[in-house]
Amino acid sequence: MANQIAVINAGSSSIKFAVFHDDAGQSLIFRGQVEKIGVAPSLMVENSEGDTLIENEWPAKEVNHQSATKIILQTAIALLGGETVEGIGHRVVHGGTKFTAPVEVTPDVVMALKLLTPLAPLHQPHNLSPIEAIMSEAPHIPQVACFDTAFHQTQPHLAQSFALPREISDSGVRRYGFHGLSYEFVSGRLQTIAPDHAQKRIIIAHLGNGASLCAMHRGRSVATTMGFTAVEGLMMGTRCGSIDPGVLIYLMDEKGLDARGLENLIYKKSGLLGVSGITSDMRALRSSNDPRAREAIDLFIYRIVREIGSLAAALGGLDGIVFTGGIGQRDAKTRQEVVAGCAWLGAAIDKQANAIGEGRIDAPQSTIPIWVVSTDEERIIARHTADLIRSAATSEADVVTADVPGPTVQG
Amino acid sequence: MANQIAVINAGSSSIKFAVFHDDAGQSLIFRGQVEKIGVAPSLMVENSEGDTLIENEWPAKEVNHQSATKIILQTAIALLGGETVEGIGHRVVHGGTKFTAPVEVTPDVVMALKLLTPLAPLHQPHNLSPIEAIMSEAPHIPQVACFDTAFHQTQPHLAQSFALPREISDSGVRRYGFHGLSYEFVSGRLQTIAPDHAQKRIIIAHLGNGASLCAMHRGRSVATTMGFTAVEGLMMGTRCGSIDPGVLIYLMDEKGLDARGLENLIYKKSGLLGVSGITSDMRALRSSNDPRAREAIDLFIYRIVREIGSLAAALGGLDGIVFTGGIGQRDAKTRQEVVAGCAWLGAAIDKQANAIGEGRIDAPQSTIPIWVVSTDEERIIARHTADLIRSAATSEADVVTADVPGPTVQG
Repeated sequence: MANQIAVINAGSSSIKFAVFHDDAGQSLIFRGQVEKIGVAPSLMVENSEGDTLIENEWPAKEVNHQSATKIILQTAIALLGGETVEGIGHRVVHGGTKFTAPVEVTPDVVMALKLLTPLAPLHQPHNLSPIEAIMSEAPHIPQVACFDTAFHQTQPHLAQSFALPREISDSGVRRYGFHGLSYEFVSGRLQTIAPDHAQKRIIIAHLGNGASLCAMHRGRSVATTMGFTAVEGLMMGTRCGSIDPGVLIYLMDEKGLDARGLENLIYKKSGLLGVSGITSDMRALRSSNDPRAREAIDLFIYRIVREIGSLAAALGGLDGIVFTGGIGQRDAKTRQEVVAGCAWLGAAIDKQANAIGEGRIDAPQSTIPIWVVSTDEERIIARHTADLIRSAATSEADVVTADVPGPTVQG
Repeated sequence: MANQIAVINAGSSSIKFAVFHDDAGQSLIFRGQVEKIGVAPSLMVENSEGDTLIENEWPAKEVNHQSATKIILQTAIALLGGETVEGIGHRVVHGGTKFTAPVEVTPDVVMALKLLTPLAPLHQPHNLSPIEAIMSEAPHIPQVACFDTAFHQTQPHLAQSFALPREISDSGVRRYGFHGLSYEFVSGRLQTIAPDHAQKRIIIAHLGNGASLCAMHRGRSVATTMGFTAVEGLMMGTRCGSIDPGVLIYLMDEKGLDARGLENLIYKKSGLLGVSGITSDMRALRSSNDPRAREAIDLFIYRIVREIGSLAAALGGLDGIVFTGGIGQRDAKTRQEVVAGCAWLGAAIDKQANAIGEGRIDAPQSTIPIWVVSTDEERIIARHTADLIRSAATSEADVVTADVPGPTVQG
C-alpha cells in the first residue's frame, strides 16, 4: 500500500514540491521546485541528502504555472517509479474565516476557496490550479488544503481589527495574517529544542522574498504584521509593506493609477527592488557598493526593528526572537543588524554563533535567547495531510462499524 | 502702535482664533472658535480668565468656512475696539519639503502652498482660504504661515521613507508627519517643567479628534505616526489610521469605490465612529453601555499601545510619555488604559494625580515619568508670528541703514 505523501506549495513565481514517507518522522524522499516561472524557468530536484537528482531549464515562454504543474507531476511520478501516493497536500494562502484548519478537498471546498480569490488575487489562483488539475486527472487521490491564515486564528479580536466601518469589517475585511504554515512549523521546532522558552513571549521573523513577523505566546499567534493581504507589514522583496493609505488615493488622483496599476506598484515594483532601483535579491544588494542598495537594506532593517517594537507591545514584553525564511536563515548580516536594533529589548548577538547560523545565536550578555530555525512548510503540510487522511479513513471505518447492528464484527 | 498678534487655526470642521498681547509671555486677550461648520455652527469667545464673552448659534446652512472666517474677523475687530493687529499667524497643515519653518506670506508663498493641496486635500484649502481673504481685504497686515509638518523635518531619512519606488519617493511621497505645532509647544513646555527629561527619549501622545504620536530625542522629532497624509497611524475620531493598503484595492475591485469614495470612507466614516457605529465623540462613547462603544475604545487604546512600542523601537528605549490634545488632556480613562498597556515599558499611573490631569501623573513605582501637558497651538503660532514680523522689520531696517551711504543717520 502506498504510504507516500506528496506536497505542492505553489507561489506566485515558483512551485515547490516534496514527497515524504508517511513514517513517524515523515522522512523526506525527494523535494524540488520549478523557479522563476515566466522569467527563466528551471527545475531542480534533490534527494533527502541534498544531492541533486534532476536539473533542467527552459526558455521563459515555454513554462507557465499550468505547464510547471505538469512538469512536477510527471517528474514526481517518474521518481516514484510507478508507486502512487496516499495523498497530496497543498499550501493555500487564504482560508478566510471559514477554513481555520486543514481540510480535505472536495468540489465544494474548491468552490468556497475560489470565492476567497479577491482576498489574495495574486496567490489563491496559483494555489488552486494544481488542486483542480489533480482532481480532474486523478480524482481517487485524496487532497488536503493547508492554510497560511489558519495559524493566526488565535489572534485576539483587536489584533485582527481595522478601524473601518463595522459593516466592512463584518464582511471579512480584517487582519488574517499569513506565513502561518511556516510559523506553525517553527513554533513546533522551538517546542522541541527549547520547550520552556516556546511557552513564552516569542517573535518569529519569517524573512524572505515575502516577509512577516509573528508574535506568539504559549505557541499561539497573538499578532502578526501581514494583514488582510500579503502586502502589509514589513518591507519585502518587491512589496512595500505598510504605507499610509492616503498615498494610494494620491496616486489615483495625481498619477491616474487604477486598481491594477496600484496593485502592480505595491506588490511588484516596491520593497527592496523599488528603493534600490536595482534588484529584490538581498544577496545581490549585500554585495553591491551602490548607496541605493545600502539604503534599501537599511530601510528593510529599520522597518523590522519598528515592527518588533510594535509586536513586543502586543505581547507586553519579549522573551525571545527566532529568525527563519530565506533571508532569516541565510543572511547573517540581516540578523546582526536587526538584533542591534533590538538592543533596547536586551537582545545581543554572538558573532560566531551567528556566522554558523543554526540554533542559538545570542551572546552571553543577551537577556533574551535568539535562534535561527530552518522552516519547512512542505513538512508541516505533509504532516497535516497524513493526519487528515488517516483520521478520515478511521472515521469512515467507524461509520461502517456503526452501520452494522448487533454484536461487534470480529476483525 | 498695535502690538497684538492674531491667530487663525482653520481645521476641517472648525476655525479657532485668538489674539495675544505681544509681550514677553504673549498674554492672551481673547480666544474662541466657530465649531461644527456645516452641521450645527456655533461661535464661542472667551477672555483670558475663561469667562465667556460671546456665544452664538446658526442653522447648519448659514455658515460655511468662508462665512465663518468673516464672522471671526468681524468679531475680532469688534472686540479689539478698532485697534488693528500687528500681524496674523495661521496654522497651515502642509509645508511640503520647501517650507521647513514659519514663513511670511506673500502671493508667491500662497501659490506654492496651493500646489501642496494634493498632499492634504481636506485641510490645506481651509488653511489657505482665510489667508487669501485677509490678503485681499487688509493687504497691509503681515501674515505668517506656520506648518504642522515643520517640526518633523528632523526625522532621519529612514523614518520618512516608504518602501516605494525611488522615483515616487523623490517626487515627495514620504512621511511628513503632522501636529507639529502642538508637539513644538508641548516640547517647549516640557523644557520648562522638566528640563532634564525633555532631553531624553520622550513620546508625546497628541490624542484628539485627529490623533498622532511623536517620538522625540533631545526635543527633536525622531519619528511620528502620521505620514504622508493625516490619515496614517493611530485610529482617530473618524479616520481609520494605518490599514493594509491592499484593503483599498479590494474595496475598489469589490465595492466599486473610487478615490473620493475611499477618501470619504477612510477619513470620515472610520475610526471611533465607524467601529462603534454610534459617534466619534469619546465622551459619548465613554458614557455608553453599548458593547460596540467599548470595542471602539478598546481598539483606539490597542492601536496607541502598539504604536508606542514601535516608536520606542525608533528611540531605542523610552524615558517618558506626555499626554496632550482634547482626549489626552481630558480623558483620564484613556490615559489610564494606555499606561496600563505600557506597563512592560515600566510605566505606571498614579490614580489620584491622573484624576487631576495636569503635570506629573506617574506612580512612585513607575520607572518613567508621565505627564499631562495642555497644548496651545495658537500660542506657538503667535510666538512664531511675532518673531518673524519683528525680525523682518529689523532686517528691513538693516537694509535701509545699509542703503544710506556715509555716516550713520541720527534718529
